[in-house]
Amino acid sequence: MDTNIVHSPLDGDAIKQAAQSISSDEMTLLDRYWRAANYLSVGQIYLMGNPLLREPLKFEDTKPRLLGHWGTTPGLNFIYAHLNRIIVRDDCKVLYICGPGHGGPGMVANTYLEGSYSEIYPEVGEDLAGLKSLMKQFSFPGGIPSHAAPETPGSIHEGGELGYALLHAYGAAFDNPDLVVAAVVGDGEAETGPLAASWFSNKFLNPVRDGAVLPILHCNGYKIANPTLFGRMEEGELRSLFEGYGYDPIFVSGDDPAVMHPLMAATLDACFARIRQIQKDARESGKAGEPRWPMIVLKSPKGWTGPKEVNGKKVEGFWRAHQVPITDTRTKADSLKLLEEWMKSYHPEELFGEDGRLLPELKALAPKGDKRMGALPEANGGLLRRDLDMPDFRDYAVAVPRPGGSTAEATRELGKFLRDVMKRNEAHKNFRIMGPDETASNRLDAVFQETDRVWIEKRESFDESLGENGRVMEVLSEHLCQGWLEGYLLTGRHGFFSTYEAFIHIVDSMFNQHAKWLKITRDLEWRKPIASLNYLLTSHVWRQDHNGFTHQDPGFIDHVINKKADIVRVYLPADANSLLWVADHCLTTWDRINVIVAGKQPAPQWLTMEQAEKHCQAGIGVWDWASNDEDGEPDLVMACAGDVPTLEALAAVDILRKYMPELKIRVVNVVDLMTLQSHGEHPHGLTDMAFDALFTRNKPVIFAFHGYPWLIHRLTYRRANHNNIHVRGYKEEGTTTTPFDMVVLNDLDRFHLALDAIDRLPGWRNQSGSAVEYCEAKLKEHKAYVHEHGEDMPEINGWGWPYGTAARTGD
Amino acid sequence: MDTNIVHSPLDGDAIKQAAQSISSDEMTLLDRYWRAANYLSVGQIYLMGNPLLREPLKFEDTKPRLLGHWGTTPGLNFIYAHLNRIIVRDDCKVLYICGPGHGGPGMVANTYLEGSYSEIYPEVGEDLAGLKSLMKQFSFPGGIPSHAAPETPGSIHEGGELGYALLHAYGAAFDNPDLVVAAVVGDGEAETGPLAASWFSNKFLNPVRDGAVLPILHCNGYKIANPTLFGRMEEGELRSLFEGYGYDPIFVSGDDPAVMHPLMAATLDACFARIRQIQKDARESGKAGEPRWPMIVLKSPKGWTGPKEVNGKKVEGFWRAHQVPITDTRTKADSLKLLEEWMKSYHPEELFGEDGRLLPELKALAPKGDKRMGALPEANGGLLRRDLDMPDFRDYAVAVPRPGGSTAEATRELGKFLRDVMKRNEAHKNFRIMGPDETASNRLDAVFQETDRVWIEKRESFDESLGENGRVMEVLSEHLCQGWLEGYLLTGRHGFFSTYEAFIHIVDSMFNQHAKWLKITRDLEWRKPIASLNYLLTSHVWRQDHNGFTHQDPGFIDHVINKKADIVRVYLPADANSLLWVADHCLTTWDRINVIVAGKQPAPQWLTMEQAEKHCQAGIGVWDWASNDEDGEPDLVMACAGDVPTLEALAAVDILRKYMPELKIRVVNVVDLMTLQSHGEHPHGLTDMAFDALFTRNKPVIFAFHGYPWLIHRLTYRRANHNNIHVRGYKEEGTTTTPFDMVVLNDLDRFHLALDAIDRLPGWRNQSGSAVEYCEAKLKEHKAYVHEHGEDMPEINGWGWPYGTAARTGD
Repeated sequence: MDTNIVHSPLDGDAIKQAAQSISSDEMTLLDRYWRAANYLSVGQIYLMGNPLLREPLKFEDTKPRLLGHWGTTPGLNFIYAHLNRIIVRDDCKVLYICGPGHGGPGMVANTYLEGSYSEIYPEVGEDLAGLKSLMKQFSFPGGIPSHAAPETPGSIHEGGELGYALLHAYGAAFDNPDLVVAAVVGDGEAETGPLAASWFSNKFLNPVRDGAVLPILHCNGYKIANPTLFGRMEEGELRSLFEGYGYDPIFVSGDDPAVMHPLMAATLDACFARIRQIQKDARESGKAGEPRWPMIVLKSPKGWTGPKEVNGKKVEGFWRAHQVPITDTRTKADSLKLLEEWMKSYHPEELFGEDGRLLPELKALAPKGDKRMGALPEANGGLLRRDLDMPDFRDYAVAVPRPGGSTAEATRELGKFLRDVMKRNEAHKNFRIMGPDETASNRLDAVFQETDRVWIEKRESFDESLGENGRVMEVLSEHLCQGWLEGYLLTGRHGFFSTYEAFIHIVDSMFNQHAKWLKITRDLEWRKPIASLNYLLTSHVWRQDHNGFTHQDPGFIDHVINKKADIVRVYLPADANSLLWVADHCLTTWDRINVIVAGKQPAPQWLTMEQAEKHCQAGIGVWDWASNDEDGEPDLVMACAGDVPTLEALAAVDILRKYMPELKIRVVNVVDLMTLQSHGEHPHGLTDMAFDALFTRNKPVIFAFHGYPWLIHRLTYRRANHNNIHVRGYKEEGTTTTPFDMVVLNDLDRFHLALDAIDRLPGWRNQSGSAVEYCEAKLKEHKAYVHEHGEDMPEINGWGWPYGTAARTGD
Repeated sequence: MDTNIVHSPLDGDAIKQAAQSISSDEMTLLDRYWRAANYLSVGQIYLMGNPLLREPLKFEDTKPRLLGHWGTTPGLNFIYAHLNRIIVRDDCKVLYICGPGHGGPGMVANTYLEGSYSEIYPEVGEDLAGLKSLMKQFSFPGGIPSHAAPETPGSIHEGGELGYALLHAYGAAFDNPDLVVAAVVGDGEAETGPLAASWFSNKFLNPVRDGAVLPILHCNGYKIANPTLFGRMEEGELRSLFEGYGYDPIFVSGDDPAVMHPLMAATLDACFARIRQIQKDARESGKAGEPRWPMIVLKSPKGWTGPKEVNGKKVEGFWRAHQVPITDTRTKADSLKLLEEWMKSYHPEELFGEDGRLLPELKALAPKGDKRMGALPEANGGLLRRDLDMPDFRDYAVAVPRPGGSTAEATRELGKFLRDVMKRNEAHKNFRIMGPDETASNRLDAVFQETDRVWIEKRESFDESLGENGRVMEVLSEHLCQGWLEGYLLTGRHGFFSTYEAFIHIVDSMFNQHAKWLKITRDLEWRKPIASLNYLLTSHVWRQDHNGFTHQDPGFIDHVINKKADIVRVYLPADANSLLWVADHCLTTWDRINVIVAGKQPAPQWLTMEQAEKHCQAGIGVWDWASNDEDGEPDLVMACAGDVPTLEALAAVDILRKYMPELKIRVVNVVDLMTLQSHGEHPHGLTDMAFDALFTRNKPVIFAFHGYPWLIHRLTYRRANHNNIHVRGYKEEGTTTTPFDMVVLNDLDRFHLALDAIDRLPGWRNQSGSAVEYCEAKLKEHKAYVHEHGEDMPEINGWGWPYGTAARTGD
C-alpha cells in the first residue's frame, strides 16, 4: 500500500467518560421518544381499538390473532431514536437497515412518529383515528405484513430470510460517499453463513468514493427457543473476532435505560466522529488506506421493557420474549390486565396529545424532510435511478459471413460491450459488475481494460487488475455478490452478475426474496422502479471441461420461473450477436430479474447482427436459412434453445437433409424462453395461433434444450401440439469428459437427435435406413475414439453448417 | 459451567524449537514421499504414456486436453505425508477432508502410494502398467473426474462446490470419539458464507463423546484470478479472527521444504498432543469444558515446487498456478521440455523402483491396513452403518373414530415417535436431529423429554433443554445443519432435519451436491449404502401466520425432482397417521434423499393407522369413504396432495355433494408424489393402466396441490387424461393473513375448487346454479369477515367431514 491510515482503537473508557457529560434533559426527552415507539410497537401487535388506553382495556380491543415479534423491537427502537439524534445534529443522511426484520412494528412505529409514514399512507394519519388504523392494520387481513417489508417506508431490506442485512448495507454504501448505513444485525442472523462472511465486506469499501457502514450487532442473546452463540461468548472473544474481521468494536451493554441512553449517545458520537475522520483522511489523501471501521455491539435484554415474567416464567431477557409475550388477551382477564399494565408503563399520556399526535417536544427530536430515515430517497432507489448511458451494441457485432461461417466466444464479445458500458457510465458511478472470482474465467476480461477489481487490502507489484477504485467486485461467495448487488440496485444503481451456472443455486433463496420484494413493490405507487437484476450464467452445464459432474446443473431457470411472470425473464441466446442484443436489452429494463445463459467457449456463429436483432426482438423464430420447408407445412420441426443444443440441432438437421433430402424440416430457435408459455400465463408468451404457426398442430417436434427437458413440457403443456414435442436436455449424466461426449451422455448430440426424429417419422422409415445406420455407427466410433484419444473426433469440432453461402436477413 | 478446562495457547516459539530436534533423516524420507506424490500429481494432469520418463518425453505422451488443478495440490500432498507420519507413530485414526477438491490429483496420488487405491481398483496396480493407467485415467473420457470425488478412496467430501469442508469434518467427528478429522480448508473456500459460519462448529463438539477436528487453513494466497482475502491479511489479524472463533491458531509459513518439513512435523506433534490432552481432561472429568481446539494456518506458495515462471510470467506463488501452469505440451517443444524438467525435478528415479513400485523405504512411511486414510472405514460410512432400532410407529397412532372425527398436530405426534427413536438408539450414539432453532417451533419438542439441544458454551440456570450431551443440533443456519448431517450420514450414522419449508432453498445447492454424490456411489460396488438424508419441511407455505409472504415458497420439491429418480422421494402425508408411516419408512431407507412436507397446526385427521398404512404403502389411492362413485366411473375426480389442500378438497366435495347429489365424485389422495410420474421415469411411478384406473382417461380432474401447480403438470404430462387435469396450488400470492384467506388468495380454497369443478362439468350446468351462487357468496362473505374481524369465519375452522360415521378400512 502506498499509504495506510492508522487509527488507534476507539477508547471505551473515554466514551464512558463522555457519556457522563451528555445532557440529561436531552436523554430524558430521547427516552420519552423511545417509549412512544415502544408503546406503538406493542399496540400494533395487540390492539385493534382503544389505541391510547383512554378507556379501560376490553377483550375486544385486542386482536383475535396475535402475530408479531416483540423481542427485538425495543432494541431497534432504541437505535432508531439515537440515530435520529445524530441526523438532526449533523444534518446527515443515514439509511437504517433492519436486519431483525421481525421487528416490523418498530420500523412502522418510528416512521409513523417522524411523519414519513402518514405522508405515504394518509389513511394512517397523525391523529387518533390514524393511531387506531396503525395498530389495527398490523398483521391483519388486508393490512400490512408483520415484517419490515417493501410496504415499510425507509426500508430496502425485507425482514424475511435472515443473513443479508450487512450485504444490503454495503451494497447501499458503495458509490454513495455521503451516506452512512446503520446496519442492525441480529445475533440470531449473525449465525448464518452469508452474514458470517459478509463482515469481510469492509475489505471492499473505499472511503474515498464510498459511504460508510456502521454495523450494530444487536446482541439480545436469544433466538426463537435458544440462546445465541454470540450472546454467550465472552466480551474478549467477541472483540477478538471483530478485530479479526477488521473492525474496531465498541460495546454498549446493560438494561438500565438511564445508563444506556447516554452510553449509546456517546458511542454513536465517537463512531460518527471516527467515520468522518477516516473519510476526511482518505479523501484528502485520495487513498483508501486500510481503515478499521467502528462497529457497535449492543447488548440489551430481549423484550427490553416488556413483562419480566408471565405465568411465573421468565420473559424479558429470555427467548420467551421472542414473539408475543402475553397470549389469551381476548379470553383471560389476567392476561388483559398484564397487557394494559405493560402498555401503561410507557405512560402514553406523556407522549401523545389530546388529539393523538406525538407531543411537539418529542416530534422535534425527529429529523425533517428527506433526512427522516423513512423518507430517505436512497431507500426508494427508483427515485434516484438514472438510465445507463448505453453504447450501441451493434458496434460490437461479430461478422457472420454466412451461418456457421465464423467462430467467436460469446462472452468475450460481451466483455467488450460491458467494458464500454463501464466507460460511458464511469462519471455517474452507478454501474458495477459482480462475480465470484470468475470475470476473467468467464471471458469478460475486456472490462479490465477500463477498470479494476476492487481491492482495498495489501497489493503486490505483480498483481493484475486490482485497485481500490475498481468497479468489478470479486469474492469467492455468490452470497456476497448477490447481496451487494441487491443493495446497490435497491438504492438506484445498475449491475451485472456473471457466474457459473451450477453454483448460482447457492443464492436460490436470495433470488426468491428479491423476486418477492419486486412483486410487492410493483403494487406500491410510491416505490419507483429499480434497475433489473441481471444474471449471466456461463461456464454452463455443457462445458464443464475442468470440473465435471458436480459443476453441472442447469436447474436455476426451473427455479426462476416459479416466480411471478411479470418479474422474471430467461434468455438463451445461441450466439454472440444474440447475446449482445439480450445484454443490451436487459441492462435497460427495470423491476425484473433477467437470467441470461450463454457459453464462453469458441463456437460457430449463426446470425448477423441484423438477423439477431429481429430474432431476439421476437424472442423465437424460424431460422429459414436452416429450414427446407419453404414456408410450407414441414414434416418435422427441429427446435432448439441454448448455444450447444442449437449447434447439435443444426448438425442433426444436416444429417437428416443429407440422408433424407425429401424431408421438410423447419428449424425454430428460442431465445426468450418465456415465449413458450401460454400468452395468458406470461406477457411474453406466444398466442396459441402464433405458437401453432411455428410448431404446427400435429407434426413431430424434436426440441434440443439447454436445461432439464421437462421444463419445456412444463412451459408447453397447454399447447395443441404438446403431445408431439420430444425434448432432449440434461438428464443428470456427466463427468469430466470431452464436450461432445457430454452431449452424447445425455442423448442431446446430433446423432441421437437425428435418430429421435426418424423414430417419430414412421412414414419415412423406408427412406431412413442408411441415416440410422450412419448415426449408430458414428456413436460407436465416437465412444471408441474419445476413450483412446481423450478428445473428440476432428469431424465433430470441424463440422460447419454446409448450406447457404451468404448472410441473409431471414426470419 | 461446572468446569472449564483452561489451556494456555500453544507456544509458537517452543514449536520452532522442537522442529530443530526432529530427525533430519526422517524429514528427508518424508520429503521424498512428498516428491513422489507431487510427481504423480503432475503426471496425472499431463501424461498418458511414459509415466516414469524413462524415455525422452514426446508430444504424444501428453494428453490432448490438459484438465486439472495443480495449484493446491502440493500443499495437500504435504499435509497428507505429514498426517501419515502421525498415524504411523500413534496408530490412530485420521480422516482427511480435502476442502480444495480441485486437488483431486493429490488425493489419488496419495491413496495410490499407500496402496489403498490399487486394492479398490486392481486395474490401476502398483507397477509400471498401473502407473500409466493412473496417469491416463485422470480427467480422461471413461476415466476418473478431476476432483476428489466419490470414486476417490478415503473421501467423504466431493470437491465440487466450495464451502462445506469444515461442516463435513465436524459431522464426521460427532459421536466418533477416536477419530481425528484433519480438515483442509482452502483460503478461497474460506471466503464463502457457509465456511465462515462453520468455524463456530467447535461450539457443538463435546470432547467427552466426540472426536476432534483439526482445521488446516491452506493459505496459498490465490483463487482463480485473484488474491484471497485471507492471503493478504496480516498474521495478527488472522490470529485475532481465529481466536475470536474460539481456536488456538498455529502458523506454519514458508516455501523452503527443508525448513517447512520439520516445522510442520513439530506443529502436528503439538496439535495432536493438545487434542489428546483436551480429550483426556474432558473424559476424566466427564465435562466438555470450553476447550480451545488447535488449528493450523499453513502458508505455502500456490503451485509449490512447480515452475516459477512460464513465458516470462510469474506462476509459482501466484494465481497462474491455479490450474495447468504449462499448456501446449502437445505442440510446443519448449513447453514439453519445461514439463519434462519440472517432472524430473522430483527425481522419479529416487522414488520408484525398476518395476514402477514405490521404493520400500518410502512405502514404509505409509500407515497400514484400515489406518491408511484411503482405507479408513469411516470414509466409507456404509461399512459402519447399523440400522436404527425402530419403535413401532403404530404405537403412536392418533385415534380417528371417523374421517375428520379428531384433531391433531401432525408434527407433534411425530415428535413423540422421534423421541423414542432417540431413546432406543441412545446407546448406539448414531442418531441426531438437526434444525435451525426450530425443533420446538416445529412442535417436535417431545424429543426434549429424552435429550437436549447440544450446547457447549456457557449455560444459565434458567436455560431449558440445553446440554453438552444433547442430540438435537440447533443453530440459525440451514447450511450448518445440512453440512453436519451430511458428514454424519457419510460416516455411517442416521439423522433427521426439520426446517421451515421456504428456507430450505438456502441449501438447494448443497442438496444438489449430496444427490450427485449418491448418484455416483450407487455405481461403486465398494461404497456401501449410507442412511438416507431425511428432510421434514414444516411451517409450510399455507401456515405462515406470523411471517407472511417472504416465508412462503413450496418450490424445494420442484428443485428436488430434477435429480436422479432413484435418489429422490417426496411425501405429502395428509394427516398424523400418514406422517408417522412416512417418517418410519424414510428412517429405514438408504442412499436416498427423502423430503416430507407436513404441517404443524391442529388439523382434522382422516385415516386410522390401519388405513394410513395401506394408503401410504400404495403412495396414492382412492379415499372411498369420501367418494360417492361407488366403484363405478365417476363424473369428477377430486385429487389432493398435502394436508391443507386435502382439507380444502374434501370441503369442496362436501359442497358439491350437497348441492349436486347426483354427481359422482372420486377422491384421490396422493402421499408419494413420485407415483404420478410415468413408471418409466421413476421406480414409484404408476403404470399408465394404474394411473388411468384412478384418474380415468377422460373425466375432469381437479387437483388441489400443496406446491406450485405446474409441478403436477410436469409429472403427469404423459398421462392419457392429462388435458383434463386442472391444478390449483400456490401461485405466489400471500401476505400476513388468516390461514383460510391464504388459500383464497391462491384460489385453492373449497369454494374455488367447487367452482372449478362445476366449470369443467358442462353437462351439469343446469343442476349447479345454486352451488355457484353459494360459493360466490361465501367468498364475498369471507373477505368482508376477515377484514373486519381479523380471523376466519367460524364455519371455516369448524367445518368437519359430515359423511361416514365409523372408521372403515377403505382404499
